[in-house]
Amino acid sequence: MKKVAVLLSGSGVFDGTELHESVLTLLEIARAGACYQCFAPDIPQLHVVNHLTGEADETDSRNVLVESARVARGDIKPVTDVVISEFDALIIPGGFGAAKNLCNFALAGADHVIDPSVKQFISQFTQASKPVGFICISPVMIPQCYEAGVKGTIGSDCDTAAAFELQGGSHQVTAVDDIVVDEVNKVVSTPAYMLADNIIEAHAGIEKLVRQVLLMAE
Amino acid sequence: MKKVAVLLSGSGVFDGTELHESVLTLLEIARAGACYQCFAPDIPQLHVVNHLTGEADETDSRNVLVESARVARGDIKPVTDVVISEFDALIIPGGFGAAKNLCNFALAGADHVIDPSVKQFISQFTQASKPVGFICISPVMIPQCYEAGVKGTIGSDCDTAAAFELQGGSHQVTAVDDIVVDEVNKVVSTPAYMLADNIIEAHAGIEKLVRQVLLMAE
Repeated sequence: MKKVAVLLSGSGVFDGTELHESVLTLLEIARAGACYQCFAPDIPQLHVVNHLTGEADETDSRNVLVESARVARGDIKPVTDVVISEFDALIIPGGFGAAKNLCNFALAGADHVIDPSVKQFISQFTQASKPVGFICISPVMIPQCYEAGVKGTIGSDCDTAAAFELQGGSHQVTAVDDIVVDEVNKVVSTPAYMLADNIIEAHAGIEKLVRQVLLMAE
Repeated sequence: MKKVAVLLSGSGVFDGTELHESVLTLLEIARAGACYQCFAPDIPQLHVVNHLTGEADETDSRNVLVESARVARGDIKPVTDVVISEFDALIIPGGFGAAKNLCNFALAGADHVIDPSVKQFISQFTQASKPVGFICISPVMIPQCYEAGVKGTIGSDCDTAAAFELQGGSHQVTAVDDIVVDEVNKVVSTPAYMLADNIIEAHAGIEKLVRQVLLMAE
């Protein structure tokens, strides 16, 4: 049975992992006959957002690993604990947590950098030529993880696509229910809620992405 | 297009709504061609559980409506704002939030009572003979919402089934991927993570429950 690492970034679209994307990723991994292990960095969240009002709550602070454990029903490991030989692939769902906690794209735009523990984690998959799937906004990290010219998509948002290109990637405009595949680098990406108007649209691209990542893990 | 109210109880299995169950409920409502509106009570959570350690964090406090907004991507209303004529059905996912926030079953067992704002919310659906689906542990609320003899399931846990019977319900032992239907009362229930060992098993029962609830909303 193939085993997929899933990298989470908190719990909730505005300050953590997008919950629909993460749960649908877990569902599709299981439906494809594979299993998963969730991971997250043991670092503070950039901030905590009240998801009812959309406002940051300056009085609150939360930890990315602890909050990500909510998605994983408690079964989660810090990124520093990965044993790379146990895994066939990696998938990274989106949500603002990917752009606020895994890297600092939400603050720094095209100058963003990936958190060191997250970079080290992803690098173990790329160096071993294991396929990686990036969902929603998480593809902004692709150029920093591969050689220049690597292909990926964040859908069609011009500013985000420009940042992707400035960091050396080759951005491909893509429909909400489609994926972009870089066969050479074994990278798959899909826009999900960067473009999706509803859970059905997000699900369609995620289902394709999971299938393609597992195919490349053959 | 049929419209389903989804009642949430926080965000995370140990102190709120079970996230897999809630997202899969939303997915299946959409896949069945219906739409949804999320609701939650505007009350404090019983407590906050660190989902990494399983320990309650006595220094933290969170609001059920605010945390439930994470599942709903911000699009959620307090239970007091429901306009019952707009809805065809109600579905209540599980997680400890159903037993800690929607009612106090986790503390009081067979003597538990439903939060007044939640009781008033559910009553509007039952009084209008609109179908209601209860998932996982949330069926412990069924006997308080219907006449004695109402049928429901929480799977096969003896203590919980005994509490269900003590409150006047007729408990039916059920397999993880199956549903119990009370045709007279228009009540559907499924065990989900009361019995499920994985997301596939939880999904199977939830998919059946959503289809049956929508069928009864004809």
